[in-house]
Amino acid sequence: MRAAHDDVIERLRLAVPGRVVTDADVLESARTDRSGTFASGRPIAVVYAESIEDVQAVCRIADETDTPLVTRGAGTGLAGGAIAGDGEIALSTERMCRVLEISAENQLCVVEPGILNGDLNRQLAERGLWWPPDPASKDISTVGGNIASNAGGLLCAKYGVTREAVLALKVVLVDGTLLEVGHRTVKGVTGYDLCALMIGSEGTLGIVVEATLKLRPAVMGVVPTIGAYFDSIADAVAAVAAVTAAGLQPAIMELMDRSMLEAVAAHTGLDLASAGTAYLLVQTDGPNALAEAQAVLVEVQAAGGRAEITTDPDAAASMVDVRRQGLPAMEALGALLIEDVAVPRDRMAEMYARIEEIAERYDVLIPTPAHAGDGNLHPTFVFEGSTSDVPDRIWDAARELFRAGLELGGTLTGEHGVGVLKRAFLGDELGDAQYEIQKRIKAVFDPKGLLNPGKVFGS
Amino acid sequence: MRAAHDDVIERLRLAVPGRVVTDADVLESARTDRSGTFASGRPIAVVYAESIEDVQAVCRIADETDTPLVTRGAGTGLAGGAIAGDGEIALSTERMCRVLEISAENQLCVVEPGILNGDLNRQLAERGLWWPPDPASKDISTVGGNIASNAGGLLCAKYGVTREAVLALKVVLVDGTLLEVGHRTVKGVTGYDLCALMIGSEGTLGIVVEATLKLRPAVMGVVPTIGAYFDSIADAVAAVAAVTAAGLQPAIMELMDRSMLEAVAAHTGLDLASAGTAYLLVQTDGPNALAEAQAVLVEVQAAGGRAEITTDPDAAASMVDVRRQGLPAMEALGALLIEDVAVPRDRMAEMYARIEEIAERYDVLIPTPAHAGDGNLHPTFVFEGSTSDVPDRIWDAARELFRAGLELGGTLTGEHGVGVLKRAFLGDELGDAQYEIQKRIKAVFDPKGLLNPGKVFGS
Repeated sequence: MRAAHDDVIERLRLAVPGRVVTDADVLESARTDRSGTFASGRPIAVVYAESIEDVQAVCRIADETDTPLVTRGAGTGLAGGAIAGDGEIALSTERMCRVLEISAENQLCVVEPGILNGDLNRQLAERGLWWPPDPASKDISTVGGNIASNAGGLLCAKYGVTREAVLALKVVLVDGTLLEVGHRTVKGVTGYDLCALMIGSEGTLGIVVEATLKLRPAVMGVVPTIGAYFDSIADAVAAVAAVTAAGLQPAIMELMDRSMLEAVAAHTGLDLASAGTAYLLVQTDGPNALAEAQAVLVEVQAAGGRAEITTDPDAAASMVDVRRQGLPAMEALGALLIEDVAVPRDRMAEMYARIEEIAERYDVLIPTPAHAGDGNLHPTFVFEGSTSDVPDRIWDAARELFRAGLELGGTLTGEHGVGVLKRAFLGDELGDAQYEIQKRIKAVFDPKGLLNPGKVFGS
Repeated sequence: MRAAHDDVIERLRLAVPGRVVTDADVLESARTDRSGTFASGRPIAVVYAESIEDVQAVCRIADETDTPLVTRGAGTGLAGGAIAGDGEIALSTERMCRVLEISAENQLCVVEPGILNGDLNRQLAERGLWWPPDPASKDISTVGGNIASNAGGLLCAKYGVTREAVLALKVVLVDGTLLEVGHRTVKGVTGYDLCALMIGSEGTLGIVVEATLKLRPAVMGVVPTIGAYFDSIADAVAAVAAVTAAGLQPAIMELMDRSMLEAVAAHTGLDLASAGTAYLLVQTDGPNALAEAQAVLVEVQAAGGRAEITTDPDAAASMVDVRRQGLPAMEALGALLIEDVAVPRDRMAEMYARIEEIAERYDVLIPTPAHAGDGNLHPTFVFEGSTSDVPDRIWDAARELFRAGLELGGTLTGEHGVGVLKRAFLGDELGDAQYEIQKRIKAVFDPKGLLNPGKVFGS
């Protein structure tokens, strides 16, 4: 039976003194994330855990009092996966931000979940090491959040997603049990891979309290940059396909369509209309970077791209800036719903055509950048009003977009996660049998459904 | 209630006519694998499925008659994970060996589970593509078996294990339901990663009937080879550590200790004793291969290695052959129990010392090669008698070895799997809480425990 909120708060204060905050502004900020979605009601408290023992104590109280628990990192999620509402405890990992170990010999580090990806990578860089996951949010998002959402980014086609960059996790279960999953070794096949199961589980199975991360040597040397303008998005997509089919593996391949270029032109005053109606940004890295960039350029030009290679920092910055200005330029146009479909790489042109068709039919602007190397598009619906209040018409258009992505063999979400934003569509992708099995796995870890309720599953 | 065997066989014959074999020699061969372990008793039939529908039909019969079902590929496992015994149906995927699709643009292929890794890679090579998992068995082991055991190999430190090379799976559950898990896209975060959960699950959760594999461009160009002799295994391990710490990433780094070198010398007549007491074989690949090999050589020599680089095919073959002769040389000495511990890379020297100590104390020869780049050692117990009848004294020594591996932060099995051989030790590594959760996940998929019973879990 659920205990009274005051009793729960009192128990929390006794168990983890000094970590329990009930100030109205703090509770209010825990209701939302960068998706602009708000939970209904406010959490009863935000608890700032400082240790594994703190997390265990909070979980035990939640379990014993049947109080729902929502774990949060920096609150930068884009799917409402970490928003805490009425009657819930918000458990923050922000104060658990220590680096516990860095080992060059084992190419690993051990960290607490609340450290920011960018802060960690600055420390690693001093040792010539690198943790590859690179969500656009990396300077403001936590490693724990990256793990909870299996974060992607620009470099995934070459360097993999978060799942490929985690060796082991310590996880606190809802009853306070501390579980150690995965291996400190590169290989390990003892039993089911619960470490992989945890990654991307969005706080619904347990709370990640420590992570052993797989590192790479920092990539050294010059990074040539190519900025290519095309007459159509189809040509640009064909260039990407040709690059991949030629066995080339750029570090990043970022695509922008006409409406995104127009937004950037309006925002920056750059004359992009005369340059082209689609833009492809490519960077190569590693010991063969320049030769690889030259081979990429051949493919890009053969596909009709007007392009050049530069290794000059200023010229490269200008090329990169066209892409980087995309988000502020779109934000200047109105409220945004940032979507996240991924399709097989050879269906990208079709996906762009479907997006254009949906934009026309619903009379809505949908600028769409893509991590083209891995077929991950971010169709961004622009509308009047507030991001926290997406109009039904926009949701209808988004629903058609999801359906188009699934029809093309793709997925609802490449890297942002399901959260509350896409839970209504999850069953469409998984099918009934898998949806049922996923819910039963949830019940193995969290039989009472106290961890992040309403996220991922639900309608 | 379990049906009479004759009734089950009759139902199988009706459901999948022409695929059901009950010849004594075929049943007998399904009792064992390359570990030399034999199941107690014989299976009631071996069913050679030719389609997904066949597998579904067989599963439904197993489910409805409560008959245990053991899935087998080529039977090359080293842990007794696919051996079928008394009252069980052995389901063979050997005839499901088609390549259904190869896409250079998406860098993926879709295959049936029974295709041999080597056969697949020959087909891919014609298209300039490559599926990286490279267990030593690759010419005789199936892709389905590689997936069931999350196979590793020599190239894993650089190119990852099987889990990193699988995008999606079709899986038949014990009740005949067809599940599609994973994504055809590079990224995808909809719900829990059941694809990763399936990989390495050793036939205990479902039957993999189709796999979408993540490919890489074939690695082109010269592959320089370094063969280095050291005065001690500790020096050789130090060389490996120095290579890793320098941020170099060879394609393979294979280590051999003194007793393995002695076995090879005895078997081949080569004078290795005067060359050294430990051997390190390194190959680099990719566009920077030669420069990388030269940088490796610097580290190897600084650690006391007597070494040279060659790109001459004959000279390289001689260097590789020292390693390749290891298994036949050990087989010439007696029956073998091939173990598979992995430890963090910086504990390898300690692990070698522990192995030496155990070998002395138990008076048993334990030649130990290692995939040194990822800390995966194969201590190989040599004894008189038959591989299918490991003496208690050898098991006692192996048990100490497992304990030593765990104490050093390692794992019981880096790439061979648990099967029946290590099930008694699984709980030692996982701990009670995780062991219990793993068993409950098993029950989600297979509530009656019909799939590969006694494997992975059990005492």
